[in-house]
Amino acid sequence: MSRIETRLHALGLALPEPLTGPDVTFNFKPVKVHAGVAYISGHGPFDGPNVLVQGIVGLDLTLEEGYEAAQLVALSILASLKQELGDLDRVTQWIRAVGYIYSEPGFGHNAAVLNGFSDLIVELWGDAGRHARSAPGQGPSPFNVPVIVDAIAAVE
Amino acid sequence: MSRIETRLHALGLALPEPLTGPDVTFNFKPVKVHAGVAYISGHGPFDGPNVLVQGIVGLDLTLEEGYEAAQLVALSILASLKQELGDLDRVTQWIRAVGYIYSEPGFGHNAAVLNGFSDLIVELWGDAGRHARSAPGQGPSPFNVPVIVDAIAAVE
Amino acid sequence: MSRIETRLHALGLALPEPLTGPDVTFNFKPVKVHAGVAYISGHGPFDGPNVLVQGIVGLDLTLEEGYEAAQLVALSILASLKQELGDLDRVTQWIRAVGYIYSEPGFGHNAAVLNGFSDLIVELWGDAGRHARSAPGQGPSPFNVPVIVDAIAAVE
Repeated sequence: MSRIETRLHALGLALPEPLTGPDVTFNFKPVKVHAGVAYISGHGPFDGPNVLVQGIVGLDLTLEEGYEAAQLVALSILASLKQELGDLDRVTQWIRAVGYIYSEPGFGHNAAVLNGFSDLIVELWGDAGRHARSAPGQGPSPFNVPVIVDAIAAVE
Repeated sequence: MSRIETRLHALGLALPEPLTGPDVTFNFKPVKVHAGVAYISGHGPFDGPNVLVQGIVGLDLTLEEGYEAAQLVALSILASLKQELGDLDRVTQWIRAVGYIYSEPGFGHNAAVLNGFSDLIVELWGDAGRHARSAPGQGPSPFNVPVIVDAIAAVE
Repeated sequence: MSRIETRLHALGLALPEPLTGPDVTFNFKPVKVHAGVAYISGHGPFDGPNVLVQGIVGLDLTLEEGYEAAQLVALSILASLKQELGDLDRVTQWIRAVGYIYSEPGFGHNAAVLNGFSDLIVELWGDAGRHARSAPGQGPSPFNVPVIVDAIAAVE
């Protein structure tokens, strides 16, 4: 098993099924590789076509639940990367991520929610996992999920 | 005429005028090319400086009208690309797009709306048109349009 | 002193402290450089950990105050770039920026707000500062700031 997946399992985590459209044709690629860079589509907290978490952070969900949802997004992204690349060890650097947070007005803790994604990536890749990122608020979200993340990573 | 424009006309579609600011100085480039990649600014459903569609999807506009607006965004982007590159055939790969959807709370069909953009690009470019993408919800939008899209594409 | 900082001071502007987390661990890099490109994290109008402007444009803030906030965002980004690169003159081209605008429904002047960022970058870098950009609306924002911007720039 790959080095990254071994670490993932040591954390007690497992990959979900790769993202597929729940009730809509996804006419796009979950991951597109160009010139040594993997461009990763926006993922939510999905297991295959199943939406695992819905709701607005600060209203329906606590900050902690938002953090956990962002970790589930990371896992869905890793499943898509494994599907595209064959082996997660081919990801050599995480470059950039945008996490769009769907929250109640006045919530403001977008950065703490998105740490659910970033903490796992850094736990798995170490310093190579440290990325630039943004955590803007989003308006009404796709499938009413609390957070979606897109990212780019260097691959070999 | 270029191969891509020939296909566009065969679909009964035509390019609008390239994007210009309706009532504001656009102090930016609609397209900036760097190292073989075209970075495309956020476009709405515009014909030159004229906003073609306004409103909130799921409130003022149906899903189908949102889809059509996203197709108009694709056409505005193609007009800017032609202006910058001279010939749309210079675009060799569509890499990534972000479509920001302005919808009513609970709408959730962001992916289906953004297919109006993606379906046209894939229709025109075939497999090279298949891109990674995100469809986050946006808050109150520029010029009250239902959708804006930015993208990056490889060019020769 | 560097050429860019000399111009900045001639405009009567000064760099704030580089961005740090106000009340949250920022488990990410303000700037990550990969393959000659600096990927800049989302910045708000910050001076170190201090939030300089909060509120919703068109409700709590006027368009002009939103423009000024976007200029403060540019200054925070420049402070992070100087911290990462040592010298702002190493930035050779501004490629792309996304400015997420937190506004009242119906406001629509996102582009005019984001000009506060773009005008300063073009003032400092000239034609090399002209970038592609998007100005989507955002939902409830991190730290309730009116605007955050992320960007990418070519560096030598």
